[in-house]
Amino acid sequence: MDIAERPINFTRGVPAEETFPLDLLAECAASAIRGSHAQQVMQYGPSLGFSPLREWLANKHDVPTDHVMLANGSLQFLDFIGLGVLQRGDRVLVESPTYDRTLTLLRRHGLQIGGIPLQDDGPDLAALEAVLGQEVPKLMYVIPDFQNPSGATMSLAKRERLVALARRYDVRLLEDAPYRPLRYRGTQLPALFDLAPERTLYMSSFTKQISPGVRVGYLLGEPAMLKKLAKVAEDTYITPNLVGAAAVYEFCQRGYLDNQLKSLRTLYSERMDVLCTTLRELLPSAKWIEPDGGFFLSITLAEGTTNEALRKNAAALQLNLSDGRGFFPVPSDGERFLRLPFCALTPDEIREGVRRLAQAVQQTSNQPVGAV
Amino acid sequence: MDIAERPINFTRGVPAEETFPLDLLAECAASAIRGSHAQQVMQYGPSLGFSPLREWLANKHDVPTDHVMLANGSLQFLDFIGLGVLQRGDRVLVESPTYDRTLTLLRRHGLQIGGIPLQDDGPDLAALEAVLGQEVPKLMYVIPDFQNPSGATMSLAKRERLVALARRYDVRLLEDAPYRPLRYRGTQLPALFDLAPERTLYMSSFTKQISPGVRVGYLLGEPAMLKKLAKVAEDTYITPNLVGAAAVYEFCQRGYLDNQLKSLRTLYSERMDVLCTTLRELLPSAKWIEPDGGFFLSITLAEGTTNEALRKNAAALQLNLSDGRGFFPVPSDGERFLRLPFCALTPDEIREGVRRLAQAVQQTSNQPVGAV
Repeated sequence: MDIAERPINFTRGVPAEETFPLDLLAECAASAIRGSHAQQVMQYGPSLGFSPLREWLANKHDVPTDHVMLANGSLQFLDFIGLGVLQRGDRVLVESPTYDRTLTLLRRHGLQIGGIPLQDDGPDLAALEAVLGQEVPKLMYVIPDFQNPSGATMSLAKRERLVALARRYDVRLLEDAPYRPLRYRGTQLPALFDLAPERTLYMSSFTKQISPGVRVGYLLGEPAMLKKLAKVAEDTYITPNLVGAAAVYEFCQRGYLDNQLKSLRTLYSERMDVLCTTLRELLPSAKWIEPDGGFFLSITLAEGTTNEALRKNAAALQLNLSDGRGFFPVPSDGERFLRLPFCALTPDEIREGVRRLAQAVQQTSNQPVGAV
Repeated sequence: MDIAERPINFTRGVPAEETFPLDLLAECAASAIRGSHAQQVMQYGPSLGFSPLREWLANKHDVPTDHVMLANGSLQFLDFIGLGVLQRGDRVLVESPTYDRTLTLLRRHGLQIGGIPLQDDGPDLAALEAVLGQEVPKLMYVIPDFQNPSGATMSLAKRERLVALARRYDVRLLEDAPYRPLRYRGTQLPALFDLAPERTLYMSSFTKQISPGVRVGYLLGEPAMLKKLAKVAEDTYITPNLVGAAAVYEFCQRGYLDNQLKSLRTLYSERMDVLCTTLRELLPSAKWIEPDGGFFLSITLAEGTTNEALRKNAAALQLNLSDGRGFFPVPSDGERFLRLPFCALTPDEIREGVRRLAQAVQQTSNQPVGAV
């Protein structure tokens, strides 16, 4: 099918299918099941997860093994934190916008969600300080690197000040860092977990590094906290998936991960550049934060544009968009917000997608308000 | 180490390690990742789970594919049912005793748990009818085949009457059937799901059939109900583990499961027979239900024996026992109850374990009450 006739999805943040290391991972899965850890892979095990992978991660992050827990993807840790650490009615802060699935889980647990406006270099810390002066939350959830959905990266100065504030007001930090290994330019900044390991829970996963299908997420934190979460995990599913974790372990332990990340960075950074270039050319009125890595770039459209009208016009052009309101603690704040995940589209699809987007934006801004 | 010096565990119901089909499963996992479903195995997918395995199960159970959902083990369905179908404060009935992890999850969701006494041929339906006349529960959870922990199997007459009662009082049934393929004698009875598919949710898994480490459970039920649970699952972990599910699919689709089940039945039925024979010989005072399959036999000890005293005396003999009280909605009802999982012990270990148990029972009954 010609590209002009194909539907294009700027919707979910999924990896590009051509990046999955099928042959290597098949080899690793088979070795994991047949190899020296076979019984550990096949039998019920500790709810903290497959020990060899926990050890490998501990070594990589320079923490003791009892600081590492695995789960079936990292999202599930949020559920466990809601069950094992927080109480209904507790206050939790997030960046506004933030990852939509995090908001869903925080709401599931009856938590009060407060949003701190996001700026180009991370959350507005003056706004945060004003909030902390009024009510100290139990937890603050942040995505410092190549944030989902905005693409913003928190500056070093803000990381240091955020940690200082967290210490002064005794706030626990939950750092979600699945995109951190996917930096396409600039130099890596210290994680919040590096700066304040005593009060930070650090979540990541192999979903964006190897494949979602292995379903292996991990959490770094204090052993006392992990013990509570491990009890919740045991009550929920006894043992996390071991075949996937063991395959990932073999993959990492054989040294395949570095090459995999290198090729992901090459592929994705080109796609990000194409998106930025095409946006500048075809949609100069849109505002966005230029990402340094990750999966997402998000634009804010001109005043008067509504998400619903835009998505309807886009759909008529076979361009599927996510509702930007889903990323905001107060949904109406996202009326003009649009997330554009760029990793799973080819450069041609990105260019064609932006062309359709510019056309849909044009149509939407020509419509009288309330016409859709 | 000589068997007399080895610790013996009559604790958890785990499969025997020597039964894990390592080579076949390694072959299946590699094929799943490399084969024609590779992209479906590696990428995010529907929260209902890996479609080819859902189709295989649908065919096996003679239901449409939209009646099948997968999860990371079957326990997790209970959590999803608590989140997506029930409300805090709802009444749920269980057999007394029942699976301890079910009780933990029902309590997590703030449900009111009522216990129906278990008899040799299933729950006491006169007691159930009396309860139903007073308050109709939202759900009744039962394990009709080779019940955990008692080993009891519900008779055909009781299955039919239970279904008739459920229809009359409009009660939803949750049938937990992980041991059902492991019948060692007698003939298979219809599942509650066979008798009343419109009101039964049927849970099972490959944990006892292939391996816990694959973490693949499944649920059969009405599509409208599965749709609700799939939404909860998506919010929890997006997609269940796919590498494990795809390996299981390959294993089933290649016809390996039948042989695997045959060899499990041969191995485990011998172990069950050794346990029964040795109990009759060394512990004639104990009462138990003779199982026809599954993983468990449970004994009820003589009046005056307490779980805590017995476990302490047993531990001194290097015999580890579970606290029988954990299996009862009212824990004190399990004071003299002891679950003996027999699958993961060799015949010699079973004989030695029962020898130590008889000795511990003897010591405990000689102690004045309150001496421990």
